[in-house]
Amino acid sequence: MRVNKDTWLKRKKSFWHRMWEDLEIGYLDKDLLPLLIVLNIEQGIHTMSSCSGRIVASDSRSPWSRESDSTIIFKKHTPVKPEEILELYKIPVYRKIWLNVTGPIIHLSTMDLATAIKILRIARLSGYKHSGIISLNSDKGVVLELTTGVYMSTPLRTRSKDIVKPEETPGLVELVNNILYEGKKRLTKLYMELKKALPWRPDEEIVEYIEKHGIRVHEKSPIEVFEELSSNLRDNHNN
Amino acid sequence: MRVNKDTWLKRKKSFWHRMWEDLEIGYLDKDLLPLLIVLNIEQGIHTMSSCSGRIVASDSRSPWSRESDSTIIFKKHTPVKPEEILELYKIPVYRKIWLNVTGPIIHLSTMDLATAIKILRIARLSGYKHSGIISLNSDKGVVLELTTGVYMSTPLRTRSKDIVKPEETPGLVELVNNILYEGKKRLTKLYMELKKALPWRPDEEIVEYIEKHGIRVHEKSPIEVFEELSSNLRDNHNN
Repeated sequence: MRVNKDTWLKRKKSFWHRMWEDLEIGYLDKDLLPLLIVLNIEQGIHTMSSCSGRIVASDSRSPWSRESDSTIIFKKHTPVKPEEILELYKIPVYRKIWLNVTGPIIHLSTMDLATAIKILRIARLSGYKHSGIISLNSDKGVVLELTTGVYMSTPLRTRSKDIVKPEETPGLVELVNNILYEGKKRLTKLYMELKKALPWRPDEEIVEYIEKHGIRVHEKSPIEVFEELSSNLRDNHNN
Repeated sequence: MRVNKDTWLKRKKSFWHRMWEDLEIGYLDKDLLPLLIVLNIEQGIHTMSSCSGRIVASDSRSPWSRESDSTIIFKKHTPVKPEEILELYKIPVYRKIWLNVTGPIIHLSTMDLATAIKILRIARLSGYKHSGIISLNSDKGVVLELTTGVYMSTPLRTRSKDIVKPEETPGLVELVNNILYEGKKRLTKLYMELKKALPWRPDEEIVEYIEKHGIRVHEKSPIEVFEELSSNLRDNHNN
């Protein structure tokens, strides 16, 4: 399989610009930025839709249900508060209420297989044990998904019963926030390892963009950005 | 990357024989056999350690902890009974007690990238959305991991509290067994799709082995084998 270089480069440009738009409209978790920037500085890599790890409550048939079988009640990339969990006991249950925590999921495309294999090795060494090449395509390149095993998925309520009683909220919140934090630590580990290795061939256009816009967020680690986000939320909440 | 054909074929032979040994000593989930056989009949594919989906209770720091941080309390590939869950409330908690259900995870190796891509496409169409090429190696071939999103992971107890009270066991057991069954349905779906497509080039040695040993289990679907296993267990339990 040969990747169509022109198409791939156009896609890189478009994903790069979309990333900054997504950040502006709040679609992008800011703590992903350091990692995404480090990856994009490499010529043969562009990132795609990714997640820094999050807490999601849904009313769904099963935790993996999508669309018609599932309604998202809330989604957060920062620690959850007991009040937010307690809200889940005040609403009617249509299917089941689930509380899910997922670790980071990074999607990226490489221009060739050799780069994909190198990234896969670094990911594996950084604890991303469920990573792989999910597709190969002449236009889209070699697409990788990097994931950890950091995950929790608990049924809180069925239509007839509470599986986890609301009284258990404090213990549950502690658990959930710890798992979220564990995910952010893995994000930081991957960032550190990639920063040591990359770029093999710097992408001059990306480097120029970063300089021109005075971007410096990738000098911080994901966990530093996460902690800033979390404390901003706390401050807003206390005001 | 070029796969060393001789080494790869030796590995195929050794994995094939180990599979039957594992079955004999109870290391292999019998409901995996139909799928594993259908895959191995293709010349350019051999299977590796896989799981048909299971329910696991552990005392561990987190559901993804391994070895030093985790003790498996029980592991079942067939439905769980309320008594088995209630046992989990009678033991001391060292870290946390987790109840996990995982869907099928299939590991296989292909002799070339083209075969890997074809299998990946079939897996994706069969609902194995988290599948990918996890490594490429001249001796081990192109290694694939095929997985679904079928998963549940619930904290039952911490050292200080029960997050899920023992009274909720009936509802929890129903949920857990339904998720296990959902996994077995996905196993069957993949088996059906692969059976339609494979073999592209039959592996004469494997075909001969199957005929010589009168093997017919792959004429049944995984869910038929699973239901036989589950009802055998029920019968043994009632005697």
